[in-house]
Amino acid sequence: MPSAIVAGASGYTGALAARLLHRHPGFDLVAVTSRSDAGRRLDDLYPYHRVPMTLEEIDLDRHGNVDAAIVAYPHGAAAPLVAALRDRGVKVVDLSADFRLRDVAEYERWYVEHPHPELIHDAVYGLPERYREAVRDATLVANPGCYPTATLLALTPLANHLLDVVIDAKSGVSGAGRKLQDSTHFVSADENVTPYGVGRHRHMPEIDQELHAAGAPRELRVTFTPHLVPLDQGELVSCYATLREPLGADDVQRLFERAYAGEPFVELIDRPPGVRDVRDTNICRISARLDERTQKVFVFAAIDNLWKGASSQAVQNLNLMFGLDEIGGIDA
Amino acid sequence: MPSAIVAGASGYTGALAARLLHRHPGFDLVAVTSRSDAGRRLDDLYPYHRVPMTLEEIDLDRHGNVDAAIVAYPHGAAAPLVAALRDRGVKVVDLSADFRLRDVAEYERWYVEHPHPELIHDAVYGLPERYREAVRDATLVANPGCYPTATLLALTPLANHLLDVVIDAKSGVSGAGRKLQDSTHFVSADENVTPYGVGRHRHMPEIDQELHAAGAPRELRVTFTPHLVPLDQGELVSCYATLREPLGADDVQRLFERAYAGEPFVELIDRPPGVRDVRDTNICRISARLDERTQKVFVFAAIDNLWKGASSQAVQNLNLMFGLDEIGGIDA
Amino acid sequence: MPSAIVAGASGYTGALAARLLHRHPGFDLVAVTSRSDAGRRLDDLYPYHRVPMTLEEIDLDRHGNVDAAIVAYPHGAAAPLVAALRDRGVKVVDLSADFRLRDVAEYERWYVEHPHPELIHDAVYGLPERYREAVRDATLVANPGCYPTATLLALTPLANHLLDVVIDAKSGVSGAGRKLQDSTHFVSADENVTPYGVGRHRHMPEIDQELHAAGAPRELRVTFTPHLVPLDQGELVSCYATLREPLGADDVQRLFERAYAGEPFVELIDRPPGVRDVRDTNICRISARLDERTQKVFVFAAIDNLWKGASSQAVQNLNLMFGLDEIGGIDA
Amino acid sequence: MPSAIVAGASGYTGALAARLLHRHPGFDLVAVTSRSDAGRRLDDLYPYHRVPMTLEEIDLDRHGNVDAAIVAYPHGAAAPLVAALRDRGVKVVDLSADFRLRDVAEYERWYVEHPHPELIHDAVYGLPERYREAVRDATLVANPGCYPTATLLALTPLANHLLDVVIDAKSGVSGAGRKLQDSTHFVSADENVTPYGVGRHRHMPEIDQELHAAGAPRELRVTFTPHLVPLDQGELVSCYATLREPLGADDVQRLFERAYAGEPFVELIDRPPGVRDVRDTNICRISARLDERTQKVFVFAAIDNLWKGASSQAVQNLNLMFGLDEIGGIDA
Repeated sequence: MPSAIVAGASGYTGALAARLLHRHPGFDLVAVTSRSDAGRRLDDLYPYHRVPMTLEEIDLDRHGNVDAAIVAYPHGAAAPLVAALRDRGVKVVDLSADFRLRDVAEYERWYVEHPHPELIHDAVYGLPERYREAVRDATLVANPGCYPTATLLALTPLANHLLDVVIDAKSGVSGAGRKLQDSTHFVSADENVTPYGVGRHRHMPEIDQELHAAGAPRELRVTFTPHLVPLDQGELVSCYATLREPLGADDVQRLFERAYAGEPFVELIDRPPGVRDVRDTNICRISARLDERTQKVFVFAAIDNLWKGASSQAVQNLNLMFGLDEIGGIDA
Repeated sequence: MPSAIVAGASGYTGALAARLLHRHPGFDLVAVTSRSDAGRRLDDLYPYHRVPMTLEEIDLDRHGNVDAAIVAYPHGAAAPLVAALRDRGVKVVDLSADFRLRDVAEYERWYVEHPHPELIHDAVYGLPERYREAVRDATLVANPGCYPTATLLALTPLANHLLDVVIDAKSGVSGAGRKLQDSTHFVSADENVTPYGVGRHRHMPEIDQELHAAGAPRELRVTFTPHLVPLDQGELVSCYATLREPLGADDVQRLFERAYAGEPFVELIDRPPGVRDVRDTNICRISARLDERTQKVFVFAAIDNLWKGASSQAVQNLNLMFGLDEIGGIDA
Repeated sequence: MPSAIVAGASGYTGALAARLLHRHPGFDLVAVTSRSDAGRRLDDLYPYHRVPMTLEEIDLDRHGNVDAAIVAYPHGAAAPLVAALRDRGVKVVDLSADFRLRDVAEYERWYVEHPHPELIHDAVYGLPERYREAVRDATLVANPGCYPTATLLALTPLANHLLDVVIDAKSGVSGAGRKLQDSTHFVSADENVTPYGVGRHRHMPEIDQELHAAGAPRELRVTFTPHLVPLDQGELVSCYATLREPLGADDVQRLFERAYAGEPFVELIDRPPGVRDVRDTNICRISARLDERTQKVFVFAAIDNLWKGASSQAVQNLNLMFGLDEIGGIDA
Repeated sequence: MPSAIVAGASGYTGALAARLLHRHPGFDLVAVTSRSDAGRRLDDLYPYHRVPMTLEEIDLDRHGNVDAAIVAYPHGAAAPLVAALRDRGVKVVDLSADFRLRDVAEYERWYVEHPHPELIHDAVYGLPERYREAVRDATLVANPGCYPTATLLALTPLANHLLDVVIDAKSGVSGAGRKLQDSTHFVSADENVTPYGVGRHRHMPEIDQELHAAGAPRELRVTFTPHLVPLDQGELVSCYATLREPLGADDVQRLFERAYAGEPFVELIDRPPGVRDVRDTNICRISARLDERTQKVFVFAAIDNLWKGASSQAVQNLNLMFGLDEIGGIDA
């Protein structure tokens, strides 16, 4: 059974990845590490994950001997650890943005100077519904951001029909991470809804890149605006797409059915999805429809931002990379 | 001092209207009526409103002698009462949709057969920021819906520049009213976000009508989708407008500043508004900006759906109709 | 593999029981029934449970042939179905109160006339931590109420030391069931905390009965007051016990450790438990301590009211009744 | 009109005090100060309070010339500022604990070394329902803690009948203040209920002191346990009192009616209060009843922890100290 570690397991996504691997029938979770909380028990920090392990300082001499690693470090900090792990032959799923953008310049425009640009082209973008076969062969997977995950699943079936698209996203507060900040204080977030990162959210270039890769016209620039809503886990993207030429309601239906036939973690439904429907699952629930009145296509997609938007999708990728059943350890 | 009643005071908006009039220095609230809860104390039903009055059956012999009425009946049921009150010379603000649409056929397409189409043209659409002078002279005011209130305040300054606009709205659960239904059970709404009324919400024709009245091109059909979010009071509309010809960032700023200079209940701000910022007030808080990347104009507007979206706006209208200070009884 | 049905699967606890049995490796869920929602898909009613079955009318000719049944009917309505199922040899776990109280008169004081008093003495009270061996042999198990479950796990280790005890309980809104009522409307429950059933909650006699069975002095009458708190699943009981004679802090510790050594679903902890720690699990998390200042023993116990407080405990009981691994299908 | 400042206006209670004084018809709020946020606009920090003033560094040369000050500093930090203000003749309401306990040793056991013990005996405990006349003459008022406010209003009518009392309190998250900490992160507090400060909350000695002052027997030691519940503002105390000798239900009623006849901010009710009933008010809503089954008296009291539990009670005290109408600026 392949051995695994989670590096950066004291944050929300790392901790959940640890929980999923700890109970996974196909992996042996041998260590969880943390830069800020080494020495603390993970089940003290997150009782509900029930992972009876102590967080350790990362030590490549010991932790570099495993088969697999999920890295849950912040952007910029992840790349050096990923590089070091790969030097030792560890297959890595990286939850950060460091290897998601193919274009270094674009990465550096939105983030920081890239510490390991040479690795970018080894990385596979870890959206299995798009790149399943490549993920199987990958040794480095860049796990998608939560917003791109939902948005791309919502829009790639339409990609080469898109003229313009407005994406209005709503995310629970866990999406902002465990770090303490005014906006995630209960009193700030409760009974509130607020747009944020307006016109400058870092997930935009990732969405653009992958929509173009899926066939969207070069000149397409998506409009993407996230909002903070008062719940813990859950993300809904509401997409309003203007098409290059008219499609019938049946055409729209067919595009989605063809794209997702047999997908274990995509649910196509008739009525609008709620985020509660997918809480604590790796499922993306999608409703697509032609609006006759405006000739726009409306696509609503709901995921759990910590699961399909991060940690369970990382496990889905690991399953593929190790030739295991894709749904192992993450079936609903 | 003018005497007033609230008819239909056992629902959320009627009860709030009663509270506002009960404490209003310029009106004398003489009765509150209810078809379903007559005989109950209003401060038993809504302790936090602290209106020490008993709900009565409506009785035009007694209640028809007042100067003013706020009618908070359902669509279709309101019109007959409004007609009867006007026969007795009562000035009325109607919270229902019965007199909002100028076109009877359009009303009947979305609602029911209109009981009193002959009164439609007596009614003034009660958005004071648009129709202040007409409201002053009106004897019948059709109080706008909550979504149209926020949306129109967000978009009318841009109306004659609009080519296309996507409106993604988020509303707290009080917007669905006091009636018991599965979707407003705490367990359904908590930790959830869901689109509803997709492509067929009754507030769309109202938005269309008023945007056209404000100068929007005839062919404009807005895309409007409301979402239910887990909070009690508050509504945010996120508007993404494509313009007919480019505007500069300064032009956008100027349009909004000119539209709302001196408005007592509109706040223009630089950063995105949150609904918590306007809770329990008659204020609409608006942020408008040109997105250089897409050349779209983003407008975010936050209101309290029960206040500016219904009851305090009704009082604002009454203030105008009776020549009182417009902010009387509803200043923050 | 034993076949099973869930009768009354359209309510919260029945639907969860269906989900747990549907995924259980040791049972074959063959039907789900509902009196109010027959014909509807269970995964339409509760998408997040993902049970792809259609609710049926109960039909004993077909449903009476199974090995096991979980009955989730209201009090009074359950007993006749339980009787009919047992006539056909079905082993039953009943979620209602119908077979919890040993004393018919006491049952009838709090509920209704008992439809099948003759069956009461066949029933075993299904708190496995107290009655594990009897449950193994039982053909009818009365599943404890949610409050008694948490309270009895908190207090039975102290039972024969109790002079007086105050129990202040806090429950999420799912505890009130799916039925629509004013108090569970989102707008009523949100941002609110309210005591209810003060001095007359039906779980009191159940708590009294079992504390006495565990050795509490005859004259003990517990003080029990539940409160509604704004969350969906979760229940905390805060118990303040006055003892007949002083115990040391170590004695208290020892009583609890001895009572729960080896228990798979009880966690003894040092710091106060939160209900989030046990969400979606069959676990009861308990913190007990002597308060030196008052010589009282404080015991806090957290459960998920729908899981350990109802449906997962029912499965725990079924596991025992069928000789399966006690944690099958419900381990965290 | 007396001039006033709020010192420490960037925290929740200071900011609310500023809002209340800013709109108060009887005071002229001339400055708001902050040690951490000087230079920021208060309406930028708290848009919903709409106080259009800039936070300043405290400067006694300028701020020491006012008539009145509300001090909202942390425990220990407040006393020196209070002393300096009083040297300049300013009448002070202090929101900290620094002058609440009459016994310096007791203060120092629970807090820090007292910086100005000589002022303790100048201070009046600012619970107007108990010490109205003394407050009128006071130049220094120690504003009660939020838990003592609700608890003392609940229990003083019974004080000399008390043998033992268990107080189980539930507070919204704003009670923990604006400071960022793990427990007030939205993700920690949401869908959770947790006891805290078990057996060692600093409000206990304050409750003890004042119950004894109200006639409770010397040996009474209250049991007090607060819980964090997922809402922003609101506090409920549930009190379970064992009496020294039996009282009838009517006796209990009479004790409370006599205690609170004519009190403008106490509401006695028959059914259990909810915290939503008193949100954003200075009201304490109380329900007291004899439980025939246990002969205990149950008293439930609900307040808004930021209003009656802190800032609006401070204004109530200021009103009294300056001979103004007690309800000025804070009537519902």
